[in-house]
Amino acid sequence: MDFDEHTTLEAVMDSFRNTPDPRTKQILTTLARHAHAAVRELRPTHDEWEQAIGFLTAVGHKSDDTRQEFVLLSDVLGISTLVETINGDAHGTEGTVLGPFHMVESPERELGESIDQLGTGTPCVVTGTVTGADGVVLGGATVDIWQCDENGFYDVQRPETQPRGNGRGLFRTDENGRFWFRTVVPSHYPIPTDGPVGELLAASRRHPYRPAHIHVIAETPGYKTLTTHMFVADSPYIDSDAVFAVKESLVVDFPESRDQAEADDYGVEIPFRRAHFDIRLAPEEAPE
Amino acid sequence: MDFDEHTTLEAVMDSFRNTPDPRTKQILTTLARHAHAAVRELRPTHDEWEQAIGFLTAVGHKSDDTRQEFVLLSDVLGISTLVETINGDAHGTEGTVLGPFHMVESPERELGESIDQLGTGTPCVVTGTVTGADGVVLGGATVDIWQCDENGFYDVQRPETQPRGNGRGLFRTDENGRFWFRTVVPSHYPIPTDGPVGELLAASRRHPYRPAHIHVIAETPGYKTLTTHMFVADSPYIDSDAVFAVKESLVVDFPESRDQAEADDYGVEIPFRRAHFDIRLAPEEAPE
Repeated sequence: MDFDEHTTLEAVMDSFRNTPDPRTKQILTTLARHAHAAVRELRPTHDEWEQAIGFLTAVGHKSDDTRQEFVLLSDVLGISTLVETINGDAHGTEGTVLGPFHMVESPERELGESIDQLGTGTPCVVTGTVTGADGVVLGGATVDIWQCDENGFYDVQRPETQPRGNGRGLFRTDENGRFWFRTVVPSHYPIPTDGPVGELLAASRRHPYRPAHIHVIAETPGYKTLTTHMFVADSPYIDSDAVFAVKESLVVDFPESRDQAEADDYGVEIPFRRAHFDIRLAPEEAPE
Repeated sequence: MDFDEHTTLEAVMDSFRNTPDPRTKQILTTLARHAHAAVRELRPTHDEWEQAIGFLTAVGHKSDDTRQEFVLLSDVLGISTLVETINGDAHGTEGTVLGPFHMVESPERELGESIDQLGTGTPCVVTGTVTGADGVVLGGATVDIWQCDENGFYDVQRPETQPRGNGRGLFRTDENGRFWFRTVVPSHYPIPTDGPVGELLAASRRHPYRPAHIHVIAETPGYKTLTTHMFVADSPYIDSDAVFAVKESLVVDFPESRDQAEADDYGVEIPFRRAHFDIRLAPEEAPE
């Protein structure tokens, strides 16, 4: 029963031998194996182990209904984008991280409605289509949108100044697979730095900024749900996203428009900013 | 800026390049590397990733001033005993896990005093000596003791029936390096199963029991602090400790004694149980 550095792992692996669900067993044994490898390599002191316990506990304590510090930790370690990459499907638009702010339901909105309830930012019209990988238009698909305001804050971060649901909208594509809505140009922003993940970034001299982006989840039966962003092409930090989520195919121009006819169509004043983002969904079963 | 499964890790590693403290940099990059390897191997779905986030958050939320669920998680994965093994010093008594219940200060007690304030268990006298690796007796060393009662509960787990400090004592060895105290024989017990770690054990059909033991931290200037247990030799689960902490050298007989002279010396009634545990501390600087 005397364990050395390697037989301890063997005993732990063996302890999971009766796990009935094979995937659970695989997950537990794989995580144990990698965790032991990391500890054997790092050879932490007791103090370092206690610091690690304290850090993880603080991450848990910082998480609540409107803040998810473990998602943030996953994000800044590149785990979230790795999971997206693994689950990506080359037949559809590239995915990227969910982020920690998709925690309240987006209000259902009519096509063309504004998701901005503040009226203080740069007006913007976003249009796009949802199609299958084969180009077939997908009417009735849901397009869940959420973004920060022009100061870089999501509604849940500023409940005193933003009504719940500001910057959020759940749209449904028309019969031609089109969606369109009004908003304001989002700002780049720092991820929340007032928690343990902020301390981690500070200790490693990493900046906490994300380039400006609008979050999208597109979903319709028979296709894989897509979680992605449209990134604002000329945003600061477009080349050094704190959460490693930028993909070239997701970078979208937001040019200024003075097109009066289009302004009338969408009910905005000129000048306004204009973005177009087409979404291709991969089928649930990949084509042969 | 387009990351695949491997370049994501490169970008994360590179993001830590300016970390001023070399050890912090080593810890962050090593953990990131092993975490990415685990994720690449497991290829989690989004749902599984969300379950992992939810599990870690629940572990954090379960932790408070009197409960440390992350320590428990470290324990059941064998990480705690691995850290002990790595930090062990062959010149001294073997160490083992701290466990999650060393969270309140042990009350200072006189040699011979009882740490049991309930009077309902099997009386027991524990004696021992603290020496250096070379056998020199260490007077004035602190011996911090904590244990559960005869029902398997620590004071912090049963604040309504156990006074704070029951089962705990901070002793100081006499000029001959000796310590002795009265207590009751501790019981084997399940680690707390009403949290996420309990769910993990249930999902893997692992029992939650630890064999009966008394915790010890021995400390004196010039020597490495020792965190260990004395295990009760005839305890159930001595061969399948849920936290992998048993070492043969730490298993101690607790025989029954009817020695009236000794009973008088220690102020107990016969019959009583008797245990002896000698502690050798390794010097802070290993001898050449």
